[in-house]
Amino acid sequence: MSVKKILVLHGPNLNMLGNRDPEQYGTQTLTDLEDCIQSKAPDLSFSFFQSNHEGELIERIHQEVGENEHDGLILNLGAFTHTSVAIRDALEMVSATKVEVHLSNIHARESFRHTSFSGGVCKGIISGFGFQGYDFAIQAIMNGEE
Amino acid sequence: MSVKKILVLHGPNLNMLGNRDPEQYGTQTLTDLEDCIQSKAPDLSFSFFQSNHEGELIERIHQEVGENEHDGLILNLGAFTHTSVAIRDALEMVSATKVEVHLSNIHARESFRHTSFSGGVCKGIISGFGFQGYDFAIQAIMNGEE
Amino acid sequence: MSVKKILVLHGPNLNMLGNRDPEQYGTQTLTDLEDCIQSKAPDLSFSFFQSNHEGELIERIHQEVGENEHDGLILNLGAFTHTSVAIRDALEMVSATKVEVHLSNIHARESFRHTSFSGGVCKGIISGFGFQGYDFAIQAIMNGEE
Amino acid sequence: MSVKKILVLHGPNLNMLGNRDPEQYGTQTLTDLEDCIQSKAPDLSFSFFQSNHEGELIERIHQEVGENEHDGLILNLGAFTHTSVAIRDALEMVSATKVEVHLSNIHARESFRHTSFSGGVCKGIISGFGFQGYDFAIQAIMNGEE
Amino acid sequence: MSVKKILVLHGPNLNMLGNRDPEQYGTQTLTDLEDCIQSKAPDLSFSFFQSNHEGELIERIHQEVGENEHDGLILNLGAFTHTSVAIRDALEMVSATKVEVHLSNIHARESFRHTSFSGGVCKGIISGFGFQGYDFAIQAIMNGEE
Amino acid sequence: MSVKKILVLHGPNLNMLGNRDPEQYGTQTLTDLEDCIQSKAPDLSFSFFQSNHEGELIERIHQEVGENEHDGLILNLGAFTHTSVAIRDALEMVSATKVEVHLSNIHARESFRHTSFSGGVCKGIISGFGFQGYDFAIQAIMNGEE
Amino acid sequence: MSVKKILVLHGPNLNMLGNRDPEQYGTQTLTDLEDCIQSKAPDLSFSFFQSNHEGELIERIHQEVGENEHDGLILNLGAFTHTSVAIRDALEMVSATKVEVHLSNIHARESFRHTSFSGGVCKGIISGFGFQGYDFAIQAIMNGEE
Amino acid sequence: MSVKKILVLHGPNLNMLGNRDPEQYGTQTLTDLEDCIQSKAPDLSFSFFQSNHEGELIERIHQEVGENEHDGLILNLGAFTHTSVAIRDALEMVSATKVEVHLSNIHARESFRHTSFSGGVCKGIISGFGFQGYDFAIQAIMNGEE
Amino acid sequence: MSVKKILVLHGPNLNMLGNRDPEQYGTQTLTDLEDCIQSKAPDLSFSFFQSNHEGELIERIHQEVGENEHDGLILNLGAFTHTSVAIRDALEMVSATKVEVHLSNIHARESFRHTSFSGGVCKGIISGFGFQGYDFAIQAIMNGEE
Amino acid sequence: MSVKKILVLHGPNLNMLGNRDPEQYGTQTLTDLEDCIQSKAPDLSFSFFQSNHEGELIERIHQEVGENEHDGLILNLGAFTHTSVAIRDALEMVSATKVEVHLSNIHARESFRHTSFSGGVCKGIISGFGFQGYDFAIQAIMNGEE
Amino acid sequence: MSVKKILVLHGPNLNMLGNRDPEQYGTQTLTDLEDCIQSKAPDLSFSFFQSNHEGELIERIHQEVGENEHDGLILNLGAFTHTSVAIRDALEMVSATKVEVHLSNIHARESFRHTSFSGGVCKGIISGFGFQGYDFAIQAIMNGEE
Amino acid sequence: MSVKKILVLHGPNLNMLGNRDPEQYGTQTLTDLEDCIQSKAPDLSFSFFQSNHEGELIERIHQEVGENEHDGLILNLGAFTHTSVAIRDALEMVSATKVEVHLSNIHARESFRHTSFSGGVCKGIISGFGFQGYDFAIQAIMNGEE
Repeated sequence: MSVKKILVLHGPNLNMLGNRDPEQYGTQTLTDLEDCIQSKAPDLSFSFFQSNHEGELIERIHQEVGENEHDGLILNLGAFTHTSVAIRDALEMVSATKVEVHLSNIHARESFRHTSFSGGVCKGIISGFGFQGYDFAIQAIMNGEE
Repeated sequence: MSVKKILVLHGPNLNMLGNRDPEQYGTQTLTDLEDCIQSKAPDLSFSFFQSNHEGELIERIHQEVGENEHDGLILNLGAFTHTSVAIRDALEMVSATKVEVHLSNIHARESFRHTSFSGGVCKGIISGFGFQGYDFAIQAIMNGEE
Repeated sequence: MSVKKILVLHGPNLNMLGNRDPEQYGTQTLTDLEDCIQSKAPDLSFSFFQSNHEGELIERIHQEVGENEHDGLILNLGAFTHTSVAIRDALEMVSATKVEVHLSNIHARESFRHTSFSGGVCKGIISGFGFQGYDFAIQAIMNGEE
Repeated sequence: MSVKKILVLHGPNLNMLGNRDPEQYGTQTLTDLEDCIQSKAPDLSFSFFQSNHEGELIERIHQEVGENEHDGLILNLGAFTHTSVAIRDALEMVSATKVEVHLSNIHARESFRHTSFSGGVCKGIISGFGFQGYDFAIQAIMNGEE
Repeated sequence: MSVKKILVLHGPNLNMLGNRDPEQYGTQTLTDLEDCIQSKAPDLSFSFFQSNHEGELIERIHQEVGENEHDGLILNLGAFTHTSVAIRDALEMVSATKVEVHLSNIHARESFRHTSFSGGVCKGIISGFGFQGYDFAIQAIMNGEE
Repeated sequence: MSVKKILVLHGPNLNMLGNRDPEQYGTQTLTDLEDCIQSKAPDLSFSFFQSNHEGELIERIHQEVGENEHDGLILNLGAFTHTSVAIRDALEMVSATKVEVHLSNIHARESFRHTSFSGGVCKGIISGFGFQGYDFAIQAIMNGEE
Repeated sequence: MSVKKILVLHGPNLNMLGNRDPEQYGTQTLTDLEDCIQSKAPDLSFSFFQSNHEGELIERIHQEVGENEHDGLILNLGAFTHTSVAIRDALEMVSATKVEVHLSNIHARESFRHTSFSGGVCKGIISGFGFQGYDFAIQAIMNGEE
Repeated sequence: MSVKKILVLHGPNLNMLGNRDPEQYGTQTLTDLEDCIQSKAPDLSFSFFQSNHEGELIERIHQEVGENEHDGLILNLGAFTHTSVAIRDALEMVSATKVEVHLSNIHARESFRHTSFSGGVCKGIISGFGFQGYDFAIQAIMNGEE
Repeated sequence: MSVKKILVLHGPNLNMLGNRDPEQYGTQTLTDLEDCIQSKAPDLSFSFFQSNHEGELIERIHQEVGENEHDGLILNLGAFTHTSVAIRDALEMVSATKVEVHLSNIHARESFRHTSFSGGVCKGIISGFGFQGYDFAIQAIMNGEE
Repeated sequence: MSVKKILVLHGPNLNMLGNRDPEQYGTQTLTDLEDCIQSKAPDLSFSFFQSNHEGELIERIHQEVGENEHDGLILNLGAFTHTSVAIRDALEMVSATKVEVHLSNIHARESFRHTSFSGGVCKGIISGFGFQGYDFAIQAIMNGEE
Repeated sequence: MSVKKILVLHGPNLNMLGNRDPEQYGTQTLTDLEDCIQSKAPDLSFSFFQSNHEGELIERIHQEVGENEHDGLILNLGAFTHTSVAIRDALEMVSATKVEVHLSNIHARESFRHTSFSGGVCKGIISGFGFQGYDFAIQAIMNGEE
Repeated sequence: MSVKKILVLHGPNLNMLGNRDPEQYGTQTLTDLEDCIQSKAPDLSFSFFQSNHEGELIERIHQEVGENEHDGLILNLGAFTHTSVAIRDALEMVSATKVEVHLSNIHARESFRHTSFSGGVCKGIISGFGFQGYDFAIQAIMNGEE
């Protein structure tokens, strides 16, 4: 079996992880998160892509259409989760397993964060478990591969 | 370190798992699910409790108040997720880590399944990953314990 | 052809039929209703089950899953009609013909009685014809059997 | 006792019964339905009236005001059920027993078919039982006559 | 000055005035209403038109477009007040003074009678004064003529 | 027969009639309106009361409770029509005939002017006929007196 | 290939085209529109039908069920677009290509004109292009025929 | 006069009073509450019933129908206040004086706690006064008895 | 301990108590209510203030800010309960114990009486117990003082 | 150029500024605010008017109609901002420049404070800048004067 | 007459046309669409611009402001149709004829696709006719030019 | 004291200022606005940044996180004010004083412009004062610095 490849998409503001209000959010950065993800699954090949631009996220998703370069997608689209129909449309074209992750429990925040355009076209949603949520997403994707 | 104990609560209709429409839901039963859970974490001690009665679920949750017999709760409250304020009230009294699991992706079903009274008082929600969701919940609880 | 069997489920407060405000509701009791049902169709075998407990109704419905002990179900779930997603979920597993009956015309009462979670998964709904509604339900079930 | 007379009103599009999509709706026509109704209750005298015009239905109902030519009305107003306040107003003037029938279960269709202006001023509603629903309506009317 | 001409439009069910529930509505008929209207303003020329058909009312209104045969229109559209956008569209073409009249106070009835498509394109609305409301409408039209 | 007495209540901002934007509202003042009212019915005795204070209007209405000093009330409560439950409560205590008048057609203005707390407890509403609306209100009150 | 036949249905008030407010709507009449339609596609055979009666439109549509006399339907249902479930039901029976046309852009008018019961069962909607919209509809129907 | 008897119904989670978060809720238990109630009115005879089961509460209420064993009912239905139509239906059958009590001010909590199905069929509601609220309820019941 | 002082605020229309419809509301006046309140607690010093003016109620509440002349406030704000944000703002400044009282059960009346701006900033609400509700309010205030 | 005159209107509860909860709101009083306003623009002539009475505010605004005694109005209507249609109506008559000021950011408070009846008829709104907001309002008014 | 120039804007995901799910969407690509557009009107000069970036679309539209380089704009903004107020604002600045096109009938899809921010500022909308819709848009633009 | 630095962010379409419809918006460009801002506060150091890209605005805001290069932010996010949760999230990370400015009074425009995601995390909002609003924002920021 070839090495499994997973694409991890980080949405807007996630590049600032660890640089904001360390008391509330901790000091771990996006690089720390990516290292953590890689360390959890050393046998897998990860690609990471962060963007604050809806259009860049759409176009990165387009690269996965048809050719299936990656075996799975892990998505934390941040605020775009709740506002972007265009990303949802892009995700619908991708046949790889897609898992939506949120660091915090979105059901325990403002009501405008309770809706998810993207989650409706994914296999499932993991919300509230911090970095560990990505570990679960990897397992969910690999499970579908077995 | 003593053996970690986890209580798994199954809500209404979950006792029928595997007995209904095998084509859509598969043939695995609730016993299969419980065996699967135990096999995933052989070092942990699991208690299982299924009920179709809101009151019994409330009272089983009450046993966890104060004394903290279990280190974590995994909850799949089925349809009560969307209708029971009373179970939410009971869960609020429990200080152990609580994780809500749904076998299917509730955001991809009828709109009356999109709300979660219980999820708002849990650490997080895992939705759409079948049996594997329980595995994630165990990991989330053990993570908090480390 | 073997004797047809029908299960009649009475929801909350129906055990009080005839014991309340005789001027408005008449003096006929639940036993009178059951006698009436049996007398209308002496060749059929009826089982009756009343409960004020959502969980007991769910579990009684579970007994009908797969084995199809009864040829049809007649349901008057009272107030649970409007609030119980869990009973709806249980009913969805039953392949026998299901008919929902209401003694009064629910469309002529408070607006919170206009919705029906259970009616959506039944063959049809009969509302407003008192005891006679059960007679119609029997005919509807037998019709499907012919 | 004189022969009982029942007026059956068919709303818009019901004249096309059997002429449309035979796979889904069957091949039975409105004439077949009327024959079926008459055959079910040979001792009764039926009048039938179909119209695709709201105004014609209103005026046909007006003929029943005061003089009570018929002992009961069976109404399947089709789409007018959900949109016509004027027919509701006309029905309110009629003292004969009125029963609303729908061939399909309107609670299992689009949400704009869940409301019923006319049903609120009838004795009851029968929904989802095909031709047999008319048989139930006849029984309901005759029951009130006994 | 030539004799002023007024067209009075009666909507659905108004032809039954006096024939329904005399206790609540009195025994005066539509003819009585028209006689009453004529007697209140013997110097004016009235045309009366009643229909239970939305289309006939639309077409009667069309006759008033451009040529202005009548100096004013008095409209009691009954239930069409609340449901007919098409009559509103027809009324918008008429340049004569238009006054909407309701026998009862529509704000003291069911909420679906509180909206008025037609009233929004009239000079004003008179609601709750019985026959006398037509007298007011005549005065309002003549006032605009002086 | 004694001289009939009518109380006319003017709500907030009506004291400014004629002083504001003469192009749109004309130059007639509240005094002109009151003169106009008196001149229309020289045989009646009118009392006039204007206030921009909700409390003063309530208390003026209280004077009419029980003793029935006036035979009828004509109310143009201005913006309080849409916001004052307290005036509605006061009006409910008055047994004299109450008529609500609006100079403009409130159904042709902003949506927050379409509701009427006070109109629901009056005999009827006249909207859109300027000063003449008061004339209609007088006639409506006298009609009840005849 | 035989001559293609298209049925053009004109809804309420369209018979008044050109007779109302020439400044805003122009002076072209319904006959002008029909001439324009015919002139645009001289090789096609057109039938035209205008009615202000919902029932007549329903019945005209019924004539197209099954036999498919016409190859396509062009519908401008005017105000019935927004209120008639019954016409929608009739259209659903017709297998010919159906195209909905509106002379004005309905999304730029009152909010009660933004919904379309009929448009949901057509191939597509053309809104805002005046007479030319019918030309597009013809092309769309002929395109499906090629 | 015979000794007055009062039934006090405790809804879901009230059995845990004093066992949860002592800092916020104090250390007084349900037994303490019941002792407090009895001590406030030593001349009265109290029955107490707590259940976390909707069905048990319904059935306990049924025992009060007709025979009127108790002179009054004090209800703190906890979360069932907001979700149970079935308990409301049961309460409607009881002719004894019914008073609803809430320990906390429900209008100062989450919006889903602002509705009360049960309160609408009681004499009144007391909300926000802790144990003392029961004292008020006793007085309200005895007042009706005097 | 000094004599405890309580301020009782009566909102709009309460000055008319006993003067309106004696059959429904009884014949007891506001003076009777105040006598009743004083007689219930002869050891307390009561101040009474009624106004139909929102502004006067606000200013009377202002007198209690800071200096705490009274130990508690009892508020029956009548219709202002549901409409006055300004009184709510004034009450928020007062540190004395505040209790809201309604003579009738507001949850059993029109829906526009179900909201309470003022109740959200009080200790609790007592609704439906007539004059006795004030007695409860006194006890609630004195309880906080003990 | 003559001395510019500005009228500053303070709504309900603003007279209590500085007298309430000094920790949160500071100790500056309404007099301090007015001194601050005057000191910011010593060359201007200010009139100040505070009222807790909607009617008094309306009447003070009326004094500005037509005669234009002041060159500008600064309005902080407190809670009346969100509830008073009558003040909005009064403001619409005033041709002087009107600016709405709020000490706190109303968009960061309860949702019932997000609407503004009065702001819709002003030049603009300044919200969240404390006393300084009045300084901005003065500048905005003077800017229009230059 | 100079050669007419038309700008065609393709919104998000349209670059993937033909690369996704060929069974449902066909195999024609965006290049095929552009060739098709050019071939339909060989005498016209087309510019094409696709972007998945809201900002790039806005800026491309800005180039059309004032100078009117193109005689018309054809817009298929994909998902941005339903979410972008900023594109609507940009379009409002363009005086050239604007036509909105959708390949599928947006009224027959999810409800969040029924709104159109951009369509409200265009001449009209064409929805449901695939590539042919662009042909109609060209004709509509050229029609305005004639 | 060092020179104060302020960052001014211009959202979508603001780069077109002065290039669009000079009659309504005037002829002043964004450069004019920036010159105006600098001229108002010659002692301050301004940075200006305009973008039509949500992502670029987010990333420009990120540069202000932690390091606090600027002492204050002035934001006119144009249409993104109403649709971008992602910009709100970015702003929440910035500790400098943030002020939202709108050239026009957003409460006097379409209802979809009444909400503000970004305004809720700013110090305050200034709406309706044209260029002068920026002057107020500068003063508000400098005030916090003093």
